[in-house]
Amino acid sequence: MIQIGILGLGTVGTGVVELIEKNQVNISKRIGDHINIKKILVKNINKERSSLVEGKITDKFEDIVEDEDISVIVEVMGGEEPALTYIREALKRGKNVVTANKEIISKYGKELLKISSANNVNLLFEASVGGGIPIIRPMKQCLSANEIVKIMGILNGTTNYILTQMTEKGESFKDALKEAQIEGYAESDPTDDIKGFDAARKTAILSSIGFNTRITPDQIYTEGIENINPVDIEYAREMGGVLKLIATCKKHEDNVEVSVTPVLLKNDHPLASVMGTFNAIMVEGNAVGRVMFYGLGAGKMPTASAVVADIMEAIKNKNGTKVHCTCYNHLNVMDPGLAMSSFYLRLRVLDKPGVLSKISGAFGENQISLSKVFQKNTMNGTAEIVMVTYDVPFKNLQEALSEIKAYKQVVEISSVIRVEGES
Amino acid sequence: MIQIGILGLGTVGTGVVELIEKNQVNISKRIGDHINIKKILVKNINKERSSLVEGKITDKFEDIVEDEDISVIVEVMGGEEPALTYIREALKRGKNVVTANKEIISKYGKELLKISSANNVNLLFEASVGGGIPIIRPMKQCLSANEIVKIMGILNGTTNYILTQMTEKGESFKDALKEAQIEGYAESDPTDDIKGFDAARKTAILSSIGFNTRITPDQIYTEGIENINPVDIEYAREMGGVLKLIATCKKHEDNVEVSVTPVLLKNDHPLASVMGTFNAIMVEGNAVGRVMFYGLGAGKMPTASAVVADIMEAIKNKNGTKVHCTCYNHLNVMDPGLAMSSFYLRLRVLDKPGVLSKISGAFGENQISLSKVFQKNTMNGTAEIVMVTYDVPFKNLQEALSEIKAYKQVVEISSVIRVEGES
Repeated sequence: MIQIGILGLGTVGTGVVELIEKNQVNISKRIGDHINIKKILVKNINKERSSLVEGKITDKFEDIVEDEDISVIVEVMGGEEPALTYIREALKRGKNVVTANKEIISKYGKELLKISSANNVNLLFEASVGGGIPIIRPMKQCLSANEIVKIMGILNGTTNYILTQMTEKGESFKDALKEAQIEGYAESDPTDDIKGFDAARKTAILSSIGFNTRITPDQIYTEGIENINPVDIEYAREMGGVLKLIATCKKHEDNVEVSVTPVLLKNDHPLASVMGTFNAIMVEGNAVGRVMFYGLGAGKMPTASAVVADIMEAIKNKNGTKVHCTCYNHLNVMDPGLAMSSFYLRLRVLDKPGVLSKISGAFGENQISLSKVFQKNTMNGTAEIVMVTYDVPFKNLQEALSEIKAYKQVVEISSVIRVEGES
Repeated sequence: MIQIGILGLGTVGTGVVELIEKNQVNISKRIGDHINIKKILVKNINKERSSLVEGKITDKFEDIVEDEDISVIVEVMGGEEPALTYIREALKRGKNVVTANKEIISKYGKELLKISSANNVNLLFEASVGGGIPIIRPMKQCLSANEIVKIMGILNGTTNYILTQMTEKGESFKDALKEAQIEGYAESDPTDDIKGFDAARKTAILSSIGFNTRITPDQIYTEGIENINPVDIEYAREMGGVLKLIATCKKHEDNVEVSVTPVLLKNDHPLASVMGTFNAIMVEGNAVGRVMFYGLGAGKMPTASAVVADIMEAIKNKNGTKVHCTCYNHLNVMDPGLAMSSFYLRLRVLDKPGVLSKISGAFGENQISLSKVFQKNTMNGTAEIVMVTYDVPFKNLQEALSEIKAYKQVVEISSVIRVEGES
């Protein structure tokens, strides 16, 4: 009988308890042993709870970490503290740790993997990226003969749900967000999701594994989706594309380019058809080519699926850790100004002769070529200009746009969105 | 230094040699050791070969299996014999074995895993299904907390390429096959691919793993794509769908339904957009929901990617096998006649009054309801009737069709194709 302890009994913690109960027959056959949840750490021991957890509840971490019978501790509290302190302590005491905590793994993964190796225990975190989608173990094991050259992903279900609603129903960002909150796909404070912070944490984990170097969330150029206008989605559709919040990680010699930004994806891109709360990750290796992993990136049971599989793996790896830190490279994170991309731009200008030529001039001076220019919506003496550039360093575009912004004929630079697969 | 031996130097064997050379720096860092290919078994030692394999070539299996230094033997010869004998012998001598051989694993996997366990060595076969796509390890590890309820996949790149050409260019099966042969995507004898035998072997492996029971290729109801007519593809398009060769595995209590057949997939199905030589596998678990794995299912470097990753895994699992046989269930394979499905039917009948009512009568007598009936192409006194049924046991449909076939007003039953997602 394997005894485990769980830290946290929120959505994911409850899912873990339910899943271990629901699939216990198969789980036992697969690992050749039974899993018993011995103790669960909660904040409020007086709250009424399901009979499944009767007699297991405690509000003292010591009850779990000092229990000699417990060999696996599952951290599903979320947030940085006290979870980080608890994980450190558990590893140092020789407990295997399974966590779904992307915040902690993305910031402190290196230190924690070092502690787990030193103590010959497992630190597993498959659920920290992509919920139930197998991605971390496949990258560390199945794709390990490759040099990974590129990773692109839709890593946040909340923003993908909002963008899907905006695309399918023509809703505003605000309305789609409200709907996501009502449906339970967005939190009451949605900042982490809509500003791209959640996706950036997952991107840090994936790019660190993919490129064997340490990349932390603060090194990742991040834009959210809060400024996306339904009109941009409409124009994207006219060009045969969709807007998605995309994590992009590319290897250039000793540099890595890594960002989380809205991207206009052409419809034939494998990530373009990923709708609603689904996530998908495309990994490109120098042998395997492009492989993609797709599924529900969040939610009680999908996340519990990954957590319980990690518990089973920790139990099977009795003789110590299998997942070491593999960040043996020391690659630079590229200045986001140097990253090359095609861009979609939407501007509102005075509807007068010569304006377009003045704007084109500023682009020309900054070595920016345009692949498409449309004049769209004329009203009240102003016109909307939509342009798509060829690949250009972001810095050049920013310089050109700051010049253009100063022109008195330019009312507004409404949108600047990366385009994938244009040139 | 880890010494390995390779059996076979065809496309995949050459890919393995090249990949170990190309990515040797990263591979060594990841496993903490160097891989040296010591010997390679070939049929003809006199053939001129690349300098990469100089001094390594032998035509005697004994040179490899009796070499004490060699700890991993890679079988990439393909076919049943002598590969099966060599794998058995290698495992019995305490060598780890990595193979891409779906024929052998699908038929003899149980026996071979037993031998590997008894000898405390690894038998790894990630490349046997889906080429470079991670699927076997993710199913055995990342999804191990789930009860798998359904697996659907496009497992053969040759047939998917042919169907894609037929769909995009309106080509006949014969022309598309010829093109696939010219492009190197189909062999000169394409039987194994076009008749679905190759897909059935991979389906046997996936369903055995997914349902923890032993399913062999001969138990799988298999239809090929050789009778698919461009007109069916056109009608499928009109109904908002595409034709694909689909492996279907479903769990019904103690029965498993498992087949490889052409299927009319609705366009919003995750597998519908898988084009060309790409493969994809959708796995549905009772916790994770639907996850999908996508990539190149064949080819030199994608297959080598999976083989070399397995070699690395075998080296890391020094203390013996991690992959045991997990077929602890004994489930029945369901009579294909009992499998429920919606069907697309195309018939040519005499263009006379009362014919449709006669046909409908035969369906009614066999408890078959129709969801759609179209009269299409009228010519020379005959008419084409296209029908889609609601879900019905295949047996009932076969009975109705044998009655209908006997009617003198029925010229031909042209097509009978399963439909996914109709009712």
